[in-house]
Amino acid sequence: MKAAILTVGTEILFGQIVNTNTVYLSRELNALGFDVLYHYTVGDNAKRLKETLDHAFKDCDLIVATGGLGPTEDDLTKETIAEYFDDELVVHGESFAALEKMAKDRGWKLTENNYKQTLMPAKARVFLNDCGTAPGFALSENGKIIISMPGPPREMHRMWEISAKPYLEDSHDGVIYYKLLRFFGIGESALETKLLNLIDKQSDPTIATYAKEGECSIRVASKRSTLEEARHAVDNCIEEIRGIVGEYLYSDNDVELHQVLGNLLIDNNITVSIAESCTGGMVTERLVRVPGISKVLDRGLVTYTWNAKMDELGVNRDTLEAHGAVSKETAIEMAEGLMEKTGSKLTIATTGVAGPDDDEGKPAGLMYIAVNLMGNTEVKELITGRKDREQNRNICTLTALDQARRIILREMSK
Amino acid sequence: MKAAILTVGTEILFGQIVNTNTVYLSRELNALGFDVLYHYTVGDNAKRLKETLDHAFKDCDLIVATGGLGPTEDDLTKETIAEYFDDELVVHGESFAALEKMAKDRGWKLTENNYKQTLMPAKARVFLNDCGTAPGFALSENGKIIISMPGPPREMHRMWEISAKPYLEDSHDGVIYYKLLRFFGIGESALETKLLNLIDKQSDPTIATYAKEGECSIRVASKRSTLEEARHAVDNCIEEIRGIVGEYLYSDNDVELHQVLGNLLIDNNITVSIAESCTGGMVTERLVRVPGISKVLDRGLVTYTWNAKMDELGVNRDTLEAHGAVSKETAIEMAEGLMEKTGSKLTIATTGVAGPDDDEGKPAGLMYIAVNLMGNTEVKELITGRKDREQNRNICTLTALDQARRIILREMSK
Repeated sequence: MKAAILTVGTEILFGQIVNTNTVYLSRELNALGFDVLYHYTVGDNAKRLKETLDHAFKDCDLIVATGGLGPTEDDLTKETIAEYFDDELVVHGESFAALEKMAKDRGWKLTENNYKQTLMPAKARVFLNDCGTAPGFALSENGKIIISMPGPPREMHRMWEISAKPYLEDSHDGVIYYKLLRFFGIGESALETKLLNLIDKQSDPTIATYAKEGECSIRVASKRSTLEEARHAVDNCIEEIRGIVGEYLYSDNDVELHQVLGNLLIDNNITVSIAESCTGGMVTERLVRVPGISKVLDRGLVTYTWNAKMDELGVNRDTLEAHGAVSKETAIEMAEGLMEKTGSKLTIATTGVAGPDDDEGKPAGLMYIAVNLMGNTEVKELITGRKDREQNRNICTLTALDQARRIILREMSK
Repeated sequence: MKAAILTVGTEILFGQIVNTNTVYLSRELNALGFDVLYHYTVGDNAKRLKETLDHAFKDCDLIVATGGLGPTEDDLTKETIAEYFDDELVVHGESFAALEKMAKDRGWKLTENNYKQTLMPAKARVFLNDCGTAPGFALSENGKIIISMPGPPREMHRMWEISAKPYLEDSHDGVIYYKLLRFFGIGESALETKLLNLIDKQSDPTIATYAKEGECSIRVASKRSTLEEARHAVDNCIEEIRGIVGEYLYSDNDVELHQVLGNLLIDNNITVSIAESCTGGMVTERLVRVPGISKVLDRGLVTYTWNAKMDELGVNRDTLEAHGAVSKETAIEMAEGLMEKTGSKLTIATTGVAGPDDDEGKPAGLMYIAVNLMGNTEVKELITGRKDREQNRNICTLTALDQARRIILREMSK
């Protein structure tokens, strides 16, 4: 089945934001077995929107659209699609009720244009939006399907998972099953090279590699006549992959690194505290994303100045003067000082030069990570060679999470 | 002059890579005064490529294409465009010589298909590629222009700067100037409602509102014959907007909230420390994104447990027992305790229920923010009514940054 992805939004045409929705939907649709032929982006303009629907439906049976469902005058995706399918907009009771409840819960005063969002094409299957005000919908006629979802990625991803994807899976021959494997410590090309034989030797399951921020992942997808067959094929393939690059694999179910470590800590009741310099709270912030982390997380200290490192962590002035704040020695004293202070079973410390400029005569991208588990400290030196502040902090954060994960697993396997 | 951007590449349709070329070209074309009406992505398929050219040239005078200029058989952008313009491919001497020299310099053995890249449409203006093997070109007929450049961003950027942009600057008609205003504390619909008269009464400058994660922004754009006129029109319009919704405006130049606060602190040498519970390091992490923040940021403490709040910040057990960790009283003691401990001029404290579950009998989304500036503490209660952990933490973080910003500005204006 052939598909097109349509993005509606002037801000994309201005190059103001990167179109990540299209990347997400391309992967999802390909994984579902759709053949994505086109990406389109148009502004909030009825004529061009209609022409684009014409063009896309010439070759495609499915259009997945995002954006243009806002409350304001220039949002007219819904109106245009309804007209295209010769349908009319009517108040959708459930959405109307949901909007009023949301407004009540959040103490909003609804304006006239908010209610515009509760109008839906009469023939549409409506997708409720529980984290935003714009519902989405699917319209289908003579084998042509259009799905329309809000533009904000958070709302779109949720609506896709809960409503749109299941809707499409029904309209589908054969079953697709896929799993996402996440890797850290190996680059995409290296990963692909190691798996090349495996990738070439088979057409199903398909193996696709993706690069992410500082990590990479693999999607293993199989399309068979039954779910059991597809799952069986995928699981066998994953075992082969594990045999080749298993040491870099940290999740075979698309769980993020902070979640993997967080669960490891919660499940084994390992109390944790974090001392951060160059990462500036990023390690702690990631762990706090994990629901239930409060059971084991005692505290995170962002000790930015020498003073803070000495006060909070008992780092010796001599160490700072002799080796600088960015050094193995300081990282170790940070982790050990934090353990003495908090009694946490696990402490993690980071210190380094995030950039963009070099500092204390140390190059941007030089960073140290010390992990103390039950009194034993291990320190790792990172040299990214990058000047980009955000990239360096992200790499250091991921490495710290991964180091802690590896050390805990190693200890537990003893 | 109206323009479309065309990306040729199957890897984009698979979602394997993010289409950054389109973002780059959108910004460049808008800055040159072109109205970008469409983005298209198609695979290496002659029929669909031709249909897309038809569709784009219906509304546009210019198509800027990237990709599909490689040496392999499936690269046929050049062939399709030549056919479309009723032109033929001939060997381009300069490109031929350049390729042989590059091969000699780098010790390559050229294969047959390398020479395919030296074939160019006879009527084309050829753009040499000094950091790759694929030249680009421009073809123009009856006021329709198409520019074709290689896909790799590094090669494309360079070719754009050196060849394509100068080529287009001749076909200039007017200049677009725009500014991005950022707002916090008001929703998109409310913002538009307040500005409706202003929006309706004028066609230039145009005023477009966008919702972002927890905030919203407005683009004011003007297209005039000279940059001065355009800038003048935009600045006047911004003053009108300021008069209506100025209290929510925190940047008239697309600067993010943490950057605005960070600069305010750095420029006025206001030292800062942060104590976080529900935001779990997010406030500190955002501030650490600001280059130069180390001049004023002393430390950030993520005090997650009661213990941590008592040890690190001197919060009284009685306060915690009487009012709970999530309370005005605790927030105030956190901010004041941190000030006593660090001597920072500004301290920010957050405590709340991030969710997804309620806690201590308090609802998810109930959060308190205390800001202490030079000994005076102000506390704000937030009730988002949301269960989403990330959304709540983000809203609380933005509100904390905004509160600090407002309080500092108010003090400075005294």
